Amino acid sequence: MSPSVPPSMSSSVPAAPPPVLRTQPVLTRSDRVIVGGGAVAVAFAGVTRYVHLGSVTAFAVAAVAVAMLATLVGRSVEQLGDRFGPGATGVLQSALGNLPELFIGIFALRAGLVQVVQAAIIGSILGNILLVLGLAFLVGGLKHGRQQFDSTRARTAIAMLILAVAAMVVPSLAHYVHTPAAKHEQALSSIVAIVLLVVFAFSVPASLRREPGEVPDHEAEPPRWPLWLALGLLTAASVLAALVSDWFVHALTPAIEALNISQAFAGLVIVAVAGNAVENVVGIQLAARNQSNYALSVIINSPLQIALVLAPVLVLISTVIGGATLTLVFAPMLVAAVALSVITVAFIIIDGESVWLEGAALLGLYGVLATAFWWG
Amino acid sequence: MSPSVPPSMSSSVPAAPPPVLRTQPVLTRSDRVIVGGGAVAVAFAGVTRYVHLGSVTAFAVAAVAVAMLATLVGRSVEQLGDRFGPGATGVLQSALGNLPELFIGIFALRAGLVQVVQAAIIGSILGNILLVLGLAFLVGGLKHGRQQFDSTRARTAIAMLILAVAAMVVPSLAHYVHTPAAKHEQALSSIVAIVLLVVFAFSVPASLRREPGEVPDHEAEPPRWPLWLALGLLTAASVLAALVSDWFVHALTPAIEALNISQAFAGLVIVAVAGNAVENVVGIQLAARNQSNYALSVIINSPLQIALVLAPVLVLISTVIGGATLTLVFAPMLVAAVALSVITVAFIIIDGESVWLEGAALLGLYGVLATAFWWG
Amino acid sequence: MSPSVPPSMSSSVPAAPPPVLRTQPVLTRSDRVIVGGGAVAVAFAGVTRYVHLGSVTAFAVAAVAVAMLATLVGRSVEQLGDRFGPGATGVLQSALGNLPELFIGIFALRAGLVQVVQAAIIGSILGNILLVLGLAFLVGGLKHGRQQFDSTRARTAIAMLILAVAAMVVPSLAHYVHTPAAKHEQALSSIVAIVLLVVFAFSVPASLRREPGEVPDHEAEPPRWPLWLALGLLTAASVLAALVSDWFVHALTPAIEALNISQAFAGLVIVAVAGNAVENVVGIQLAARNQSNYALSVIINSPLQIALVLAPVLVLISTVIGGATLTLVFAPMLVAAVALSVITVAFIIIDGESVWLEGAALLGLYGVLATAFWWG
Repeated sequence: MSPSVPPSMSSSVPAAPPPVLRTQPVLTRSDRVIVGGGAVAVAFAGVTRYVHLGSVTAFAVAAVAVAMLATLVGRSVEQLGDRFGPGATGVLQSALGNLPELFIGIFALRAGLVQVVQAAIIGSILGNILLVLGLAFLVGGLKHGRQQFDSTRARTAIAMLILAVAAMVVPSLAHYVHTPAAKHEQALSSIVAIVLLVVFAFSVPASLRREPGEVPDHEAEPPRWPLWLALGLLTAASVLAALVSDWFVHALTPAIEALNISQAFAGLVIVAVAGNAVENVVGIQLAARNQSNYALSVIINSPLQIALVLAPVLVLISTVIGGATLTLVFAPMLVAAVALSVITVAFIIIDGESVWLEGAALLGLYGVLATAFWWG
Repeated sequence: MSPSVPPSMSSSVPAAPPPVLRTQPVLTRSDRVIVGGGAVAVAFAGVTRYVHLGSVTAFAVAAVAVAMLATLVGRSVEQLGDRFGPGATGVLQSALGNLPELFIGIFALRAGLVQVVQAAIIGSILGNILLVLGLAFLVGGLKHGRQQFDSTRARTAIAMLILAVAAMVVPSLAHYVHTPAAKHEQALSSIVAIVLLVVFAFSVPASLRREPGEVPDHEAEPPRWPLWLALGLLTAASVLAALVSDWFVHALTPAIEALNISQAFAGLVIVAVAGNAVENVVGIQLAARNQSNYALSVIINSPLQIALVLAPVLVLISTVIGGATLTLVFAPMLVAAVALSVITVAFIIIDGESVWLEGAALLGLYGVLATAFWWG
Repeated sequence: MSPSVPPSMSSSVPAAPPPVLRTQPVLTRSDRVIVGGGAVAVAFAGVTRYVHLGSVTAFAVAAVAVAMLATLVGRSVEQLGDRFGPGATGVLQSALGNLPELFIGIFALRAGLVQVVQAAIIGSILGNILLVLGLAFLVGGLKHGRQQFDSTRARTAIAMLILAVAAMVVPSLAHYVHTPAAKHEQALSSIVAIVLLVVFAFSVPASLRREPGEVPDHEAEPPRWPLWLALGLLTAASVLAALVSDWFVHALTPAIEALNISQAFAGLVIVAVAGNAVENVVGIQLAARNQSNYALSVIINSPLQIALVLAPVLVLISTVIGGATLTLVFAPMLVAAVALSVITVAFIIIDGESVWLEGAALLGLYGVLATAFWWG
């Protein structure tokens, strides 16, 4: 009953100003790094596009610029989506999150690089379920031991991924076993694409309604950007992404020749990793923080969107834009690689827990598959 | 301690007459619809068999007649089996339930339609695990949300289906990779058929002993038909099924030509759906009533019987009846389709729950596979 | 407070002699059977090696001698390992347990029998996951009904097996779909071998640390053999194993010709079963004793060591010893058989329980696959 205040309370009195300090600026430090870094990378990529500084340099700079713009698109969508509730963010992210990959795909098809695009589609799936998931299991397991994931959302996501990949490989199977349908691979691919898009459309309402307690409040921060800024940055980043994707594709073939790698390896590993680099870090960070359910959900959702949205849209768009036509008849080794990987990963996920050794083995499988595509 | 009877008991006194009213007739309305409808359909099919009314009409009428007779065989078996306890029903159903499909298979083999029979075997499996299961997940999920199935019987059924399909595709694999065994495909197919039948024989005792509480008392109604009626209707329906199966096969080739579809599509989709139409409705109805465990058990049991009984019996019978010899060397696209589907469905089932979106995706996969067989 | 000692303590006084009686001799009866039987078998095998008693006799005797020596190596390792704690036993067993198979593999490669070695590698995996696991499920299920296995160790083992087999089949897939990597199959095989060995090396620390309560104290008996005896018997058995493996391989080709079977069948069934005969009995015995978790762990661990250690070591050794070079490009039917079997078994294990019917079906699948390799 002495009048002396407890130390913790008394120390809070001089700490009154912090609330003012804690008010975040419109653009946080990290926002400014992305906007500023993106601007520098785009400018530098523009220089290497028109001034010859070596094909590999031009390609690397364009890849960094694409990755920065992808991050900026992602953050604009987040700021925009939060105004309409958390569910809308997910849908917007589905719609716009793969925008840079879409631009790259379109420009690559117009440049006739069908093999690169096909390899990049499969490579994006493999990169997520082998490389990123392997790193997440490895980092999470080394830091936290055996990790459990029991989320129904994660299990539904892996079930949907298996279904989507199963439908996606049907045209290839029809082609390689020489059924009569092999003569109609363009029509069969378009039908598969439409089925995948319809399944995606059906999945939107479920994504809009987030199950309580399943998503941590990691994203619960209120939107900081005014609407005009979010819309403006999204528009600017999208336009620049289209521009830089063109440069990226332009630099791709000389870089492949300079590095003496196969088109398949370039698509499977380099384009796929560049196109997904930044967003993938999130999944690994979540696993490191022992949020294994959320990490799994984020990591599996990315290849699911590639199979349900990106690949079908590219197939359908390729029939109307000029350039090469994209079908879902993949090179047989790509089909083997994705079938092998999806089945393996599904078994590892379905038992509801992970250890770091499984992560190491997933990375080993990724290395083995990448090696199998190395020789050109 | 008053002499007044409790309300529930007193109310039962005036309710005495209802038992008389509740006494069901020997043939219920639904029984009479099936018997009467079957008779009309068989008569009409007989007319179209000998009076030319168009090949598609003849085929459609024969298909309806087969479906009616299949239902009548099923109901007779149920009435007969209930006399010997619930387990015996299952065994009798296994033995006689696929009788119409067996007759169709035999007549089709005698007509040399090996491709149709092989496609119908695979198509019956796909129809159950993609089309019917997809509809059951869709209807059940839309009505009741996320459905759980944790029955050990259902999980054992899916494990047995995987094992049976794995054994069934070995002759095809041996053929397509050109091992020396490819030259002995008839012998290898017969050995596989015998192994499958032995596994089925081993499974009969387990089917006879139903686990308590697992099967709802949906079927617990006492047999209504006198023994002579059940036996008589079973015999009549079986004989007619043999007759109508002959007409069905006779109408098949002209209908295929009139519709301009491939033999594979006719077997995979049309024969398979016609042969399983009525029994499949049961699985979907059970899912709609939220009896997801029982629905799954019924739906998985049907392709299991096709793999363990119908296909092996047709292989062995085809070596003694005249006509084409049936081997288990399926067209490669059929092998790919069944492998893809069984693996996909097993993953979806093994996690113990379903959502309607998975049902929609299963239907999408069925559509994609059916499309891949469309072109002739 | 009475001076009387409690019954249990007082009864221990006259019981003092039993410890003397209970002291086991250095070599138990079972030890002496193995040492003596091994010596007789090796001597007899030596006779048949140089005195012609028929090629099948020579082969059978050499097979028995190999099996006896494999048991003796295993027991020496056990006695040796127990000195350094239970975990070390596992690691030593991993390192030395497949020693006879390794010798057979090396001599067979030097004799140019690449097909036999490849078939034996796949056959050892199939033998464990189909034949031994099938027998364990059958025996365990018939004696104890439905058996549960919920051990995380068993589930991690099957996940690792899938991953190892997935990596192991990549060179075959690359070869058969004619990717450019097919021209570098030697290099690709070596890279896969190194990846598998690295994953194995990572797994050693986890094996050293046994999870409490998971392994029954079945092996908890203290080492009975003095160090010199364990080391001496291990050395003697290893040297003799090398010698007898040479005779075994020498007798193999004449026996194959005398029995008129294919090289693939000889490797897949005969060499694989002979090389793993004795150790496999343990898994079945454990299942019979209802220790289903431990049985599963033992049975799955054996093919896992073949995929992670034996196959890679043979691939790498074959590049330095004379004779045929071993690659991981297996005959396509071997790839199909192992893929089919691993996927099927993984589904059966992943649901966490077994019934004897699943065991019977696994044996059926083994029989079907063995038949498919029968014709030469």
